[in-house]
Amino acid sequence: MKKKMKKINAAILIIGNEILSGRTQDKNIAFISNWLNLKCGISVREVRIIPDEEKIIVINILHLTKKFNYVFTTGGIGPTHDDITAQSISKAFKVKYEFHKEAYAILEKYYGKKKFNDGRKKMAKMPKGSKLIYNPSSAAPGFMIKNVISLPGVPSILNSMIENSKRYLVKGLRIHSKTLNLYTVESNISKQLGMIQKKYEKFVEIGSYPFFRLGKIGVAVVTRSVSQKKLKSVNTELMKIVRSKKIEILKI
Amino acid sequence: MKKKMKKINAAILIIGNEILSGRTQDKNIAFISNWLNLKCGISVREVRIIPDEEKIIVINILHLTKKFNYVFTTGGIGPTHDDITAQSISKAFKVKYEFHKEAYAILEKYYGKKKFNDGRKKMAKMPKGSKLIYNPSSAAPGFMIKNVISLPGVPSILNSMIENSKRYLVKGLRIHSKTLNLYTVESNISKQLGMIQKKYEKFVEIGSYPFFRLGKIGVAVVTRSVSQKKLKSVNTELMKIVRSKKIEILKI
Repeated sequence: MKKKMKKINAAILIIGNEILSGRTQDKNIAFISNWLNLKCGISVREVRIIPDEEKIIVINILHLTKKFNYVFTTGGIGPTHDDITAQSISKAFKVKYEFHKEAYAILEKYYGKKKFNDGRKKMAKMPKGSKLIYNPSSAAPGFMIKNVISLPGVPSILNSMIENSKRYLVKGLRIHSKTLNLYTVESNISKQLGMIQKKYEKFVEIGSYPFFRLGKIGVAVVTRSVSQKKLKSVNTELMKIVRSKKIEILKI
Repeated sequence: MKKKMKKINAAILIIGNEILSGRTQDKNIAFISNWLNLKCGISVREVRIIPDEEKIIVINILHLTKKFNYVFTTGGIGPTHDDITAQSISKAFKVKYEFHKEAYAILEKYYGKKKFNDGRKKMAKMPKGSKLIYNPSSAAPGFMIKNVISLPGVPSILNSMIENSKRYLVKGLRIHSKTLNLYTVESNISKQLGMIQKKYEKFVEIGSYPFFRLGKIGVAVVTRSVSQKKLKSVNTELMKIVRSKKIEILKI
């Protein structure tokens, strides 16, 4: 007996001039996308990186929340003037931007009453009605309002707290994938790959990505599907090509 | 005497399931953004990452080309079935998707007539009217049509050819930046940063980013402006705060 599950998707909205300008290399996109797929069966279908500007955040939140099941934001929830994610999301959803009682209590306890200054208090302000995403590494919580989950931009902190958003997410179908690393060039197998892709169009997604390894070039053929059976069939067909063309496989 | 220059902006459109799924860590965004700013005085204002699907590529190309001076795409210009960037851009602009004579000649010469198979020939197909972006590392050129510049997704190849797109770009105002690495926490300086940001609102952008280094926490205060004079004034004000609060500076 199979459980009926739906495909659930998500978008990631990276908020931060430091990523846009190239000063900082983003590390959150790959982490969140892998985590969502492996742990929740949720596929990321779009990512946007935008500047710390209220108007732009509002437009993107409104657009993405309508289009996808979940929207994960990163960045802009710290104590400084350029941290405007929470107030912008409040504006987008037309709800009050106010102190969250529990968040306030968590932060006050963490810093102690004397050191709980205005900057730190700001981190307890959220859209009214938010649920907290607890932060085991530096106390300041993230939040969820409607289908938006807001997390901080610092990768180590984000990584430590993402598990705490899991309870709020409806799980979807896990996407399985298999990678075949071949010592060949794309154009040697492109025709055959195209034919197999056409045959399994609705069930399996086939991607091919060139790589360089120890001075040799190769192609990683990545197959992805919610059906392990279909994935196996496609890989059996791929292996037939590999054998008939006498292509060497790289085992990692 | 000052040359009158305009602010020129750009968007980056990353096309590829491998980036969206988290399988591959993107390295092109930071590279392109830094290159555009340093070499061309062009600021990246938005980045999107989308799947290899024609309809989605068309919608995004049409939206971004209207909104920004330039749109850089990466990925999807190789020889396999999932490389659909060139045909999708042709569709977006309603121009023919056809062999580019010079690109065909370059590729035929590179591979030799006998090894110039259908997959490889595909890489010479582009939107009609495209200008070529030459590729010194693996021959297959990128292209520019209207305000869209299409480059490959493999970082080493992209890096080797981006200089060849420079001739087609109108240069803008270079954005200067200065980073002050302080051994303090954001909330210790957030009030003062906010006040300085307000004073220089239209001229200087101030960002603050927590860091961890050798077991100590700190804040990188990044100031960015087209005016070196204004940047200097802001940094003088920042230094006053640093001295009055006796904050240690990390010199890198």
